[in-house]
Amino acid sequence: MKACVYYGSRDIRLEDVPDPSLKDDGDAIVRITRASICGSDLWFYRGVTNPGTGSRTGHEFVGVVEDVGLGVRTLRAGDVVIAPFAWSDGTCEFCREGLQTSCVHVGFFGGEEKNGGQAELIRVPYADGTLVKMSDAIASDDDKLDASVALCDVMGTGHFGVVAADTKPGSSLVVIGDGAVGLCAVLSASRIIGADRVIAVGHSSKRLELARRFGATHIFNSNDTDTQRQIAELTRGGAPHVVEAVGNQESIDLAVNVARPGGTVGFVGVPHYEKAPMEGIFYNHVTLRGGPAPVRQYLPQLISSLETGHIDPSPILDTKLPLSRVADGYAAMDERRAIKVLLKVS
Amino acid sequence: MKACVYYGSRDIRLEDVPDPSLKDDGDAIVRITRASICGSDLWFYRGVTNPGTGSRTGHEFVGVVEDVGLGVRTLRAGDVVIAPFAWSDGTCEFCREGLQTSCVHVGFFGGEEKNGGQAELIRVPYADGTLVKMSDAIASDDDKLDASVALCDVMGTGHFGVVAADTKPGSSLVVIGDGAVGLCAVLSASRIIGADRVIAVGHSSKRLELARRFGATHIFNSNDTDTQRQIAELTRGGAPHVVEAVGNQESIDLAVNVARPGGTVGFVGVPHYEKAPMEGIFYNHVTLRGGPAPVRQYLPQLISSLETGHIDPSPILDTKLPLSRVADGYAAMDERRAIKVLLKVS
Repeated sequence: MKACVYYGSRDIRLEDVPDPSLKDDGDAIVRITRASICGSDLWFYRGVTNPGTGSRTGHEFVGVVEDVGLGVRTLRAGDVVIAPFAWSDGTCEFCREGLQTSCVHVGFFGGEEKNGGQAELIRVPYADGTLVKMSDAIASDDDKLDASVALCDVMGTGHFGVVAADTKPGSSLVVIGDGAVGLCAVLSASRIIGADRVIAVGHSSKRLELARRFGATHIFNSNDTDTQRQIAELTRGGAPHVVEAVGNQESIDLAVNVARPGGTVGFVGVPHYEKAPMEGIFYNHVTLRGGPAPVRQYLPQLISSLETGHIDPSPILDTKLPLSRVADGYAAMDERRAIKVLLKVS
Repeated sequence: MKACVYYGSRDIRLEDVPDPSLKDDGDAIVRITRASICGSDLWFYRGVTNPGTGSRTGHEFVGVVEDVGLGVRTLRAGDVVIAPFAWSDGTCEFCREGLQTSCVHVGFFGGEEKNGGQAELIRVPYADGTLVKMSDAIASDDDKLDASVALCDVMGTGHFGVVAADTKPGSSLVVIGDGAVGLCAVLSASRIIGADRVIAVGHSSKRLELARRFGATHIFNSNDTDTQRQIAELTRGGAPHVVEAVGNQESIDLAVNVARPGGTVGFVGVPHYEKAPMEGIFYNHVTLRGGPAPVRQYLPQLISSLETGHIDPSPILDTKLPLSRVADGYAAMDERRAIKVLLKVS
């Protein structure tokens, strides 16, 4: 099969590799129909992190079950399925609490295990706990299937950020970051939670306009040095809920600084900084909560919202390419020509 | 009057200074009868922080109202009162939420404003919002009045740490730190919240024994390199609730590392570190919440618990000295000969 392999900074190649096979009774093999490139893939693409030469890439995919292990009970060949970016057993104490990304058997697609989602086939461990079967309505709708790829990570992560920030219906929220996750956080806050005031902060006017379409009531450019003061003024001293959806020093600092005393920062940007603003967190009684989103918990709800049209994250998938052009897709996202690339696989 | 003045590292002097006077209508002048030295006073005593030569020291005191401004409605001369370590107006949105240390008019006793609690008299701004009148039962009981000084900061702060850690009746809690705040957190968890398992971590066997008296079910020495592993084993992977009551790098790291995935760290040690363990917080879905304790919120409850004997923090006040020997008191705490020094003022 074809799979995308990492060779180093800005060196991503589609190669012929052996097909995956069932290793454990709980495994499923999925033939991928759609995949996507994640903003977090840019960390290794840009050489900030190094997963190791020969690693497979990709953790966002939907597809069709091709084969299942003897222990798989809820799925069978032919089922149209979606996976979150991490696998989980579905039965441990953390899974039962809805914290599947802390599952005792958690694992992440892509990386050294040579099991990436930017490929034609993938082995899914703990298939019963990990995969969610699509409704017939989505399984038979090409556009919805395209859009569904956004649920694997960015929509689930944006939603988790909003939930982690303890956002309530009718409340005010600031979202830091106009990447796909930040935009999905805006969509979640306005459409799922029902926040009254959703303030989006980013540095791309085009993306901030999309934030408006997703329900942002106010937009601010983070390059404007006055942004923090303006948000403080607008929120009368700070927002009770903030989502940090970038993961760098400037974004976590801004997130804490625009939080109201006693407010909560939901942080879903993988932290690529060392100095957390602990004094601001401490003296302003800011609660910090986040982590890798337990997307699996939210998939049924998000699929249902997608099916009814209550949410439509498809505008973030603004570039569609065949898998054969995956390297072009990385370059487009790296150069911020694309918000997010949908890869048509088969 | 006599007041304790800061001159530099390990240079604390009791001096004659002008009596304070009413400055604002909401002020009260309190004649201090008992004060104490706080573990956080050791930061400047040891030269880690520098409040500036000539600053007054002390933020823990009880006393008798001597005079009140025209705007004070709930207090009058002769009332026996207790103050939290910070003043607050009692009326702003944060005070109404019980977050008095984020009050829009918050201020801290001691420091550059030349208004410290290790003195014979003190000016209390926003007296109606700040001071709490003692019940007659405590006001007439010398031992309870002595013990009550612990409520001004350390008992309120320990209790806030336990609350911030979201500790529930019947749950498991780890308390990092065997200083007065950590010991009070143990007392709060066992006596007020009703946690089932209270694990105290410190490095003084004497203090850890006191933790046992306060209700700790398990004690661990933080100098033992195996402590983290042992706590993980005891709690089967981590505690759902952790209080960090020290404020240095080792303690915040340990706090995050012994938290269960999805658990909450209540941090009340003033952060004297730069590198927060953000990766551990992120990947283990740890919620971080804390800050300067809104002691004012808890004072009525804590006073009531002290009056009935439900809590008795007095063992932490293991050294009693007259105000004239305040410098000896600092030295005793610096050298860890005393857990906490009670200063008898008048």
